[in-house]
Amino acid sequence: MAHIKLAEGVPGILGLMAFSPETAKPLNALAEVLLRGPNSLSPGDREMIATYVSSQNDCYFCQTVHGAVAAHHLDGNEKLIDGIKRNFESSPISEKQKSLLAIAGRVQKGGKNVTADDVERARKHGATDKEIHDAVLIAAAFCMYNRYVDGLATWAPEGVPEIYRQSGKRLAEQGYINSTEGLPARAGG
Amino acid sequence: MAHIKLAEGVPGILGLMAFSPETAKPLNALAEVLLRGPNSLSPGDREMIATYVSSQNDCYFCQTVHGAVAAHHLDGNEKLIDGIKRNFESSPISEKQKSLLAIAGRVQKGGKNVTADDVERARKHGATDKEIHDAVLIAAAFCMYNRYVDGLATWAPEGVPEIYRQSGKRLAEQGYINSTEGLPARAGG
Repeated sequence: MAHIKLAEGVPGILGLMAFSPETAKPLNALAEVLLRGPNSLSPGDREMIATYVSSQNDCYFCQTVHGAVAAHHLDGNEKLIDGIKRNFESSPISEKQKSLLAIAGRVQKGGKNVTADDVERARKHGATDKEIHDAVLIAAAFCMYNRYVDGLATWAPEGVPEIYRQSGKRLAEQGYINSTEGLPARAGG
Repeated sequence: MAHIKLAEGVPGILGLMAFSPETAKPLNALAEVLLRGPNSLSPGDREMIATYVSSQNDCYFCQTVHGAVAAHHLDGNEKLIDGIKRNFESSPISEKQKSLLAIAGRVQKGGKNVTADDVERARKHGATDKEIHDAVLIAAAFCMYNRYVDGLATWAPEGVPEIYRQSGKRLAEQGYINSTEGLPARAGG
């Protein structure tokens, strides 16, 4: 049971956003620009970073939803996403993307863990300042979203991949800004 | 030296916000609603939570700036803020505020660390669902801001409390929305 009274049956961050629409607005705006704004990193690559960090933070809802968004962007390749969570270094992705995931993994443990060598590795594989900046901020942002979702002990459906596939498709195609429209009001059941 | 090329002499998150105005906008909007929006928790109490979490994350820039904002809200009581960073349980603050700082400290370590007992303690001292929600989200958000600032190895002036007092006063009085106006453009020196 969640630590505070949320509308029933609204999973993960969605229940919290329905409870607190005033904070939902900037939280959704941040996700939109970070994950879907104009960028040399594809939405799939950015969702992959979000998924990996959420997995390192052991946040079931976020890693499953964003894993589904990432898979939708990547021709439905769920196996790739599962492999990245287990060991991205041996996954069939670009060396640049591996180096950005490595930076994201450092950020997950704490900002000061990012080393000059980590950044040098990313540069060597062609990462720009903006790409390095965005990898750090996506990782940092998911350290927030994950703590928000788990710190209030929200509910998430488990063992129902089709539900997450549908959410992944919807978020990939329509984005985050209006993702909480039409949810039940903040009063709990 | 920062990991990416930032405008010289612009400290902490401000250099990053000048580098990336498109993400600065939702980041500032989030800080504004969390720390200064209409709330039963005073801005001083909310800045105290932000300061404590930043201190636990060992982020010099954030704990010093938000400590100065908190102190400005609390009649310039810098000693109180220093004491809270060292040991809030023995500080002269309300039992409710202690219980919210305890929840924030759990969130800093990871969302799943918040226990039903932590939440029960807060409720016993009169905390509402919204106050518990806000304490968790402020703590989670500063786990993001701190990682953003330190993950890119930004510069911050040290040993110059007067500079931070001025920033604290300005942010306390004018807020976060336009806090990055007039900063040098993203091109580094």
